[in-house]
Amino acid sequence: MIDGLGDDTLYEAWLNRNAIREEFSDETFAFKQMDLNSGDAIALRIHKEIIEWLKRPILDDYQQATIIFTLEKNGLASDDAFRLVSNQSSMVISAQSQSGLLYGFYALIRERMLGKKNIRMVSAPDQTLRMIDHWDQIDGSIERGYAGASIFFGTPDHLDNPDKGDFSVLTVQGDPFRHDRVRMLQYARMLASIGINAISLNNVNVRSQGTDLITAPYLDGVKEIADIFRGFGIKIYLAINWESPIHIGHLKNSDPLDPRVETFWKTVCDGIYHSIPDFGGFVVKADSEGEPGPYQYGRTHAQGANMLARAIAPHDGLIIWRAFVYNSHQDWRDRSTDRAKAAYENFEELDGKFDDNVILQIKFGPIDFQTVEPLQPLFGKLTHTNQMMEFELTAEYLGHQIDINYAVPQWSKMINFDTKHSNFADSKAGEVIKEGSVKSQNSGFAAVGNVGMTPFWTGNPLALANLYGYGRLCWGNQLDSSEILSEWIEQTFTETKVKTRQTIFEIMVESNKTYRNYTAPLGVGFMVIPHYHYGVSVNGYEYDKWGTYHFADRNGVGVDRTQKSGTGFTAMYSPEVARMFEGLESTPLELTLFFHHVRYSQMLSNHKTLIKTIYDQHFAGFDTVSKYVADWSMLEADLPVDLFSEVQNRLKQQLENALEWRDQINTYFYRLSGIPDELGREIYQ
Amino acid sequence: MIDGLGDDTLYEAWLNRNAIREEFSDETFAFKQMDLNSGDAIALRIHKEIIEWLKRPILDDYQQATIIFTLEKNGLASDDAFRLVSNQSSMVISAQSQSGLLYGFYALIRERMLGKKNIRMVSAPDQTLRMIDHWDQIDGSIERGYAGASIFFGTPDHLDNPDKGDFSVLTVQGDPFRHDRVRMLQYARMLASIGINAISLNNVNVRSQGTDLITAPYLDGVKEIADIFRGFGIKIYLAINWESPIHIGHLKNSDPLDPRVETFWKTVCDGIYHSIPDFGGFVVKADSEGEPGPYQYGRTHAQGANMLARAIAPHDGLIIWRAFVYNSHQDWRDRSTDRAKAAYENFEELDGKFDDNVILQIKFGPIDFQTVEPLQPLFGKLTHTNQMMEFELTAEYLGHQIDINYAVPQWSKMINFDTKHSNFADSKAGEVIKEGSVKSQNSGFAAVGNVGMTPFWTGNPLALANLYGYGRLCWGNQLDSSEILSEWIEQTFTETKVKTRQTIFEIMVESNKTYRNYTAPLGVGFMVIPHYHYGVSVNGYEYDKWGTYHFADRNGVGVDRTQKSGTGFTAMYSPEVARMFEGLESTPLELTLFFHHVRYSQMLSNHKTLIKTIYDQHFAGFDTVSKYVADWSMLEADLPVDLFSEVQNRLKQQLENALEWRDQINTYFYRLSGIPDELGREIYQ
Repeated sequence: MIDGLGDDTLYEAWLNRNAIREEFSDETFAFKQMDLNSGDAIALRIHKEIIEWLKRPILDDYQQATIIFTLEKNGLASDDAFRLVSNQSSMVISAQSQSGLLYGFYALIRERMLGKKNIRMVSAPDQTLRMIDHWDQIDGSIERGYAGASIFFGTPDHLDNPDKGDFSVLTVQGDPFRHDRVRMLQYARMLASIGINAISLNNVNVRSQGTDLITAPYLDGVKEIADIFRGFGIKIYLAINWESPIHIGHLKNSDPLDPRVETFWKTVCDGIYHSIPDFGGFVVKADSEGEPGPYQYGRTHAQGANMLARAIAPHDGLIIWRAFVYNSHQDWRDRSTDRAKAAYENFEELDGKFDDNVILQIKFGPIDFQTVEPLQPLFGKLTHTNQMMEFELTAEYLGHQIDINYAVPQWSKMINFDTKHSNFADSKAGEVIKEGSVKSQNSGFAAVGNVGMTPFWTGNPLALANLYGYGRLCWGNQLDSSEILSEWIEQTFTETKVKTRQTIFEIMVESNKTYRNYTAPLGVGFMVIPHYHYGVSVNGYEYDKWGTYHFADRNGVGVDRTQKSGTGFTAMYSPEVARMFEGLESTPLELTLFFHHVRYSQMLSNHKTLIKTIYDQHFAGFDTVSKYVADWSMLEADLPVDLFSEVQNRLKQQLENALEWRDQINTYFYRLSGIPDELGREIYQ
Repeated sequence: MIDGLGDDTLYEAWLNRNAIREEFSDETFAFKQMDLNSGDAIALRIHKEIIEWLKRPILDDYQQATIIFTLEKNGLASDDAFRLVSNQSSMVISAQSQSGLLYGFYALIRERMLGKKNIRMVSAPDQTLRMIDHWDQIDGSIERGYAGASIFFGTPDHLDNPDKGDFSVLTVQGDPFRHDRVRMLQYARMLASIGINAISLNNVNVRSQGTDLITAPYLDGVKEIADIFRGFGIKIYLAINWESPIHIGHLKNSDPLDPRVETFWKTVCDGIYHSIPDFGGFVVKADSEGEPGPYQYGRTHAQGANMLARAIAPHDGLIIWRAFVYNSHQDWRDRSTDRAKAAYENFEELDGKFDDNVILQIKFGPIDFQTVEPLQPLFGKLTHTNQMMEFELTAEYLGHQIDINYAVPQWSKMINFDTKHSNFADSKAGEVIKEGSVKSQNSGFAAVGNVGMTPFWTGNPLALANLYGYGRLCWGNQLDSSEILSEWIEQTFTETKVKTRQTIFEIMVESNKTYRNYTAPLGVGFMVIPHYHYGVSVNGYEYDKWGTYHFADRNGVGVDRTQKSGTGFTAMYSPEVARMFEGLESTPLELTLFFHHVRYSQMLSNHKTLIKTIYDQHFAGFDTVSKYVADWSMLEADLPVDLFSEVQNRLKQQLENALEWRDQINTYFYRLSGIPDELGREIYQ
């Protein structure tokens, strides 16, 4: 089963086996100048992909084949890079390592499925580490998961409770590793096809049995997963509990300067690598939101991370240390504290202090995956620290995979934001994380995963475009998000009319902006139902401890983060960017209330008052969702019934959600401002 | 055990056994003209109370005894009434029934423990039915319970989780009736000592196994409880699931006009009374907050209730039908719907339609047990319907037994509110429910219980005063709430200095007003954290479906319920009361925002503006709690350490709660109104 064709009922997403087989039905494959008996897992996987997945033969004589793999110095710097060149009779996929061949193979499939002719391409990934962080839990649930049970730790029982997600505490019955191997194999293939080369299996909030994953007998289960993903060029990482020395090692503390603690971690690492020689490393959330960490012993994050780094270094492992550290017990009365400044304040001074196998994983924005945020100012400030930029696919704040939200444009904007730090050859965010890293190969992107055991991998089938798009962006930072969307639609909806694909494209392409329009206005963020993070609650976090406030009063709304009159957060950017955010006029409209407290009557750069902008965006947001509902309903005849219905049902929920957002936001600001809508649209009192 | 002295470690509340025994150590008892072998449960109980609880002898020759019970026509109308008369050498307790003797016995103890001399009293209860409704659940938890596990359905395991309360789903291990008999016996004694004569055991939201309580084998457990409470003159009631004919009877519906449904209920009643001949009857929550009811079959509440009434009538049982019916899916945009009108709209037209063994149980106010509400206008409008007025001891909206809140003054105010309906001899609420009832003996008070398995019965030991006070108010509607409090303190803190008791009195006597001061202002209600109902969330329910809004905007706040410009709710009262609530000036200050939408700058009857009134009350509320904390800390040396600490810990929480309420309310209204505090006290921006 594990290497077979899998379960025929499994949804194949953008890798439609039948369509691909048909496309390649005349091809034959061969390997030139390669030793297929080397035992290399990736070579073996390519072999199986051809024979078992594509159902095509591999010929002994490469001169007879139409598609030829060859390992050779091809003039590209990266092991993952590949070249596709077609001559009269054949296509040659060349790379200098097996992984390059693997990516070349899937690239060829993609290009062919997109109808490309005369394929000639040279391709190397922009980011070295292209990672998915799963927040799966050993009880089968997924923190902030909206796609059913975990594909790693879920059991068939969990299929009965696909919607429990974040709030379920499912009982593990027996072996927590009764995972669905077919599903994992297919997932590994999906990831490899878009270039992902690292996954972390478990939630960064490591609790209960999750702590034990790093040791026997749970480690055996991790090994099984590693064995599945290895052939696809994907390394396995685990999130660890900082207090493992106490919970597992029975030590009295987890002080990074205690030699017994370091010995504990060395022993753990030795055990893991004995079992999984190519294990990736650890992901660590420490001193954050109540999790333990080095601060409790008066140690720095660098001391904490480096201790782990030394333990894992002999095995070439990595320590991925999250920079999501802030005071989560803020007092709303205290306006001097600004959560946006927290990561910078905690980590800027540690630049250069981390070992070269430590990577700081930094969320793209300074708060927490909101619908719109400015770039985290650490990017470009750190010049001697390995860095990864972190995204969130699961849509915690982006509609829970109920509301359609193709978020790739947002991420693309972050990656390509110009930090204007003059000490870099290229000062765009996606570049400075490489140049600012001590070892550029220890940098990249990470994203919280969004798949689970639901029939279409994600709750809303259309949410899978975010996984696809994220992988593509990792590979090509400058890829156009609209083109990525087209690619995904083209490969996913292979058997529909062109018109159908166009409609889906039109619904999705600006869906991120649509969502932004009807939710919290102009970057102020967090007007959501507390903890749940879906649905409107304007004041839900306003007087809470999390540092996420909007400060709306009868005159205006927004957080003043300027140097002149606010928290001074703007000063953390390069001078040029700081100047941009410091001025109301020069601040991008969508970030207005992130940086400024603005009067409702203030004219903005769009030549409208703030209040009119809020009203307009919220009416527009709802109207667009109404159009989505109508447009989608036209597709019934041309789509599989289950997929059509799944999206339709969620669109109905989205419409209700957008209506509540529109009316509550408009009424809230009408009650505060007293300013009626100029156009006389209905705003409830 | 069951008839013994009980567990010596059990907290005895206001019935301090040692102190009472000492007080009565010279007394001897006797029964005159009574057949002690009649088998009457109450007579037997009185006997045991003297011998086993008081440890005093019962003499054969009543002329030798110092305290003599006698059954005789004593000129009092009620079976529960009694007369205490002392002559030279003895005290005679006379009554015309055993229950009168029982109440006389506990009254004598109370009077003696209060230090009264030359006791002569004639006493009859004002209300015939004096009931506690428990919301205990068969899994051992209590809905809206803040005092640990259920004393009826809790198991020893639950003692480990005393604070789970409302949110726990405790697993029943084996017999759900492994209840603590000692605790139940003591509770029965406590209830009898204040005149309670009816308890309903289970939550009105009847779920899962709770549905089965009315049949074997669960009924055996109910019988055991009935056997304990019978001797104390307390009848047992059960809340029923309206759909029992479906769940238990396997019928297709629960339509009250379906003869099979009526037959089902007759059979159930026959079974119950076979086992418990003096069973009280059923409590029913129907067509309310998602519970099923007769509406789903197009039947009226009267048709539903009367069907049950006919089934139970042959056994002299009662149907207690809750009037808490409203649209719990209201749209906040729709200002024409007013939840305050719901009970009136549903039940006013059914006056005279209910059988004479049906009682309508009506919450004292039109909303839901808020810190302040006007009287429910049905009282005095219903002239041919048996009625009970319902209160809530458990403090769902009154501080969860964390915050000190002696609520008896609030209830007393409701009971003694003059409805001004001219067709009654006495138009006070407590009187019209009797005169408006078809059978005046089928009327009375009910209250949601507040005890559980916590060491002091209630979470905060001081919350027990509400149980005591409620019982006393049932008996004597005009009893002064301060005097009741003094009584409770005097009997509870028997071994403390006078100064200590005075301090406790001063803390508690206005604690209800203190709580009102720092929470939602002037009767507007419901600014609480949704579902949890503790802690401030000004907008928590503002855009929700429950019909509980404050409508605050930049100009003013409050719900306009006038006829002139609002929902017209005021018109549901008698003309004189309607006029009072219709006018802003004539509306009692504390109800200002319940009836009127008022501008912040409006001068109120206290000669302050609304905004200043809000600020003043919130500063005062917090300051008073600070004083409570300081005052309580002085009592450490004079109180048992566990009781002292329990209250002290909760006072700390109360102080934090009051601080959050004060600051959030003040800031919220400052942001809206823009009006600074005249006195320059700190209001955060």
